[in-house]
Amino acid sequence: MSAGFRTFNPIKNDWNPEVYQNTTQDEYNHKLSLIAEAQRFLGRQTPEKRAALLQVIAACLSQKKELIKGFYLAESGLSETRFEMEWNRTIHTISHFATHLTTDFQAVKTECFPSESLQIQKHKLPIGPVLVLGSSNFPLAYSTAGGDTVSAIAAGCCVIVKAHPMHVGTSIAVANCIIEAIKKMNFPLGIFTHLIDEGYQLAQALCIDDRIKAIGFTGSIKGGKALMDIAQSRSNPIPVFAEMGSLNPVLIHTDLSKEMETEFAQKLALSITNDAGQFCTKPGVIFVRTLNSGNHFVQELKNALSLIKPVPMLHPQIHRNFEERKKEVLSIPGVQSFSCAIAAKGIEGTWCLAETTLQDFASNSSLQEEVFGPFALLVYYQDVAALNQVLESLPGQLTGSVFFREHDSQIDEWTELLCTKVGRIILNGVPTGVRVVETMHHGGPFPASSDVRFTAVGQDSINRFQKDVSIQSQNIT
Amino acid sequence: MSAGFRTFNPIKNDWNPEVYQNTTQDEYNHKLSLIAEAQRFLGRQTPEKRAALLQVIAACLSQKKELIKGFYLAESGLSETRFEMEWNRTIHTISHFATHLTTDFQAVKTECFPSESLQIQKHKLPIGPVLVLGSSNFPLAYSTAGGDTVSAIAAGCCVIVKAHPMHVGTSIAVANCIIEAIKKMNFPLGIFTHLIDEGYQLAQALCIDDRIKAIGFTGSIKGGKALMDIAQSRSNPIPVFAEMGSLNPVLIHTDLSKEMETEFAQKLALSITNDAGQFCTKPGVIFVRTLNSGNHFVQELKNALSLIKPVPMLHPQIHRNFEERKKEVLSIPGVQSFSCAIAAKGIEGTWCLAETTLQDFASNSSLQEEVFGPFALLVYYQDVAALNQVLESLPGQLTGSVFFREHDSQIDEWTELLCTKVGRIILNGVPTGVRVVETMHHGGPFPASSDVRFTAVGQDSINRFQKDVSIQSQNIT
Repeated sequence: MSAGFRTFNPIKNDWNPEVYQNTTQDEYNHKLSLIAEAQRFLGRQTPEKRAALLQVIAACLSQKKELIKGFYLAESGLSETRFEMEWNRTIHTISHFATHLTTDFQAVKTECFPSESLQIQKHKLPIGPVLVLGSSNFPLAYSTAGGDTVSAIAAGCCVIVKAHPMHVGTSIAVANCIIEAIKKMNFPLGIFTHLIDEGYQLAQALCIDDRIKAIGFTGSIKGGKALMDIAQSRSNPIPVFAEMGSLNPVLIHTDLSKEMETEFAQKLALSITNDAGQFCTKPGVIFVRTLNSGNHFVQELKNALSLIKPVPMLHPQIHRNFEERKKEVLSIPGVQSFSCAIAAKGIEGTWCLAETTLQDFASNSSLQEEVFGPFALLVYYQDVAALNQVLESLPGQLTGSVFFREHDSQIDEWTELLCTKVGRIILNGVPTGVRVVETMHHGGPFPASSDVRFTAVGQDSINRFQKDVSIQSQNIT
Repeated sequence: MSAGFRTFNPIKNDWNPEVYQNTTQDEYNHKLSLIAEAQRFLGRQTPEKRAALLQVIAACLSQKKELIKGFYLAESGLSETRFEMEWNRTIHTISHFATHLTTDFQAVKTECFPSESLQIQKHKLPIGPVLVLGSSNFPLAYSTAGGDTVSAIAAGCCVIVKAHPMHVGTSIAVANCIIEAIKKMNFPLGIFTHLIDEGYQLAQALCIDDRIKAIGFTGSIKGGKALMDIAQSRSNPIPVFAEMGSLNPVLIHTDLSKEMETEFAQKLALSITNDAGQFCTKPGVIFVRTLNSGNHFVQELKNALSLIKPVPMLHPQIHRNFEERKKEVLSIPGVQSFSCAIAAKGIEGTWCLAETTLQDFASNSSLQEEVFGPFALLVYYQDVAALNQVLESLPGQLTGSVFFREHDSQIDEWTELLCTKVGRIILNGVPTGVRVVETMHHGGPFPASSDVRFTAVGQDSINRFQKDVSIQSQNIT
């Protein structure tokens, strides 16, 4: 047995005491051997039974809320407020899918062709066991019992979670609740498998394991693209839904009143820095028209930011990456910056607002890549046509926001353009705060996600893990 | 300009007189340059307008039916009966989607959250320009105005067809009708682009063309996998829906009455040999339990086949491939054969029923691959458990058929097993004859198709070429 590994407490700026061991090859073999039979079992259950399992999972989680909270706070450094938000969202996602399964979910469609004594039934069936690789920044809502796991179980798929090593204690506590729920339902344990690995080896082995039929991933573009390539290289390629990085461009119309500029600047300042800006939907680039050197919106944004204190990032590695990327961006000629004046302690992320011109933004690919953390880039443009050309050339994004007073033809033009670039458009709102509702689309053109046709959030995310099979019966009278 | 190329007349066993030229680089550049603006235009049209375009396409096709029929018969060697079937199916597919767009298609879903002054609308939008690479064996229904083109236009996508070189005359005649319809609607010509290439170069260039956002393909596993790999290797990977090969296993229950054995044997004999067995859904392997040497079903299948005369295959190359694959299979030790006794003329395909044991089938991968043409393999098994194990190990298939008298637990077991292996299960029916209806699923696990979650036929096939975008509006009162 190896020496094991520990998680990090960002508040204490020290390692947590618990030591975790990687899953061994024997454990892997044993756990994976249980899945085929469990998948057959779960595939036979009605949507109502799957909803019942989800509800029992929610109940088991609720009983262990304090335990989970303890690990969550110690492993993420996030606030109690944030824990409550993420907790409620996790429980809400479970009930959202339980409701979907028991109300508007259509498991079978039937057509009859009496003149030919023929009936065709189209069944929604699980795609098979799903590997879930959760995110660093959402220890609950995008991890062990997060949207991928819940939508996969709702679809009738067994789930194999590889715990995120940065919050493996939280992951184990959550996994134990899911396992307890499965036991309470008297369902086979192979429905949910929890595996641990500090590195990448286990995830890579799982990606090429013939028993895995789909992958849900939340993380970086580099990580997501690597998974896509491995999944495609299999002798039987499988679908990967990877929710990856995004700049989340924000467009500021020139018609805003001073009051609106102040209001939106304050909202954006919070959206950039909340929880150290560690959101895939954090506004990363803000396009502002150069009107005069003392642009009121920009000044208000700086004013709002200047009141914000730094908070710890999730992990020393994330903090290091943030500082390095920030340095990289700020070293580009022509890029100016406005930063938090309060000295950071430990792994606190010092927020930063960088400023550049549209021309420099367009000619530096590094500026067009996400800086994960409390960072945004103000890009000054003079000409809307030039801005639109740059927007057209951007890679796919999760979101795009537009702030304006009057919904004029400029807003229509930007909306139409953004429809080709992003998965969600926010009119007069910040991109952070993804709602778990039927109309939510959380995804976008590559590289925001691996497949523009699917969402990671909301009931339609079940479509990632379902397939149809038609059963055609002759001589039905 | 090159010397050009010609198509082949299988009935005359000679090349057709018309000479076709490959699309030049200049033509390619010009035609592709029209697509961006046309895509913006089509994306703005309502579902009703898209339905109107489809209906005008159907009307324009109908006016040129005799012209198209002339090319079709001369380039495929298929019968007039088959032409009528495929013609009706093509026209029906167009009206199926026009009806879908004007009845149950939901372009927008809206949710309001009044307490937060928030509205979210989820819009179904076109994925962007779609490349369609049609099939050799369906010059109409899976080609220029086939299911891929029609579902893509229904989704609001511009279509770029690379004509199949084996029936390029048919393709041009059909393309001209689509172009005429676009002109009649006063829509931009970039909505439909028709390109010609005798080889693979143009298709490869299109696959990596940044303006192409999705690919629809019908053809071989090798061709489909090559496209998947190219699409995945792009800096912005795009989805490929490839409908590829299949064995279409048939399971014969032992409980059949003699009358049923005769009836099903006759149906299967036609399904194997109709139009020289050149269907992706042709039954390619039939599992029969060894009861005694004079199995009545097998005898009846041979009796039914022996009455069937050979017909021309689609092309000398397809005929050569068929003869080579057949030879390869028949050279495997232990494989016996029963073949058409009538001497074949020209490129007629001599039907063949090969016979082997379950053990030999399981241990020879060549026997588990499709033989495209009038060929089927009878596999004799002794033990249902051994058969099921072999079925479990098969790659993904488009269809699986089961013939039986009583729906007993054996049928349930096979149905459940086939649900993991095929896209469509046919109870007491042959797999050929795919209906264009809402409940149809034409696809299956890899390698039957590239993505088990999508169908190539029926209104749900529109999902291949659509994406969602959510538009979230704050301060809506």
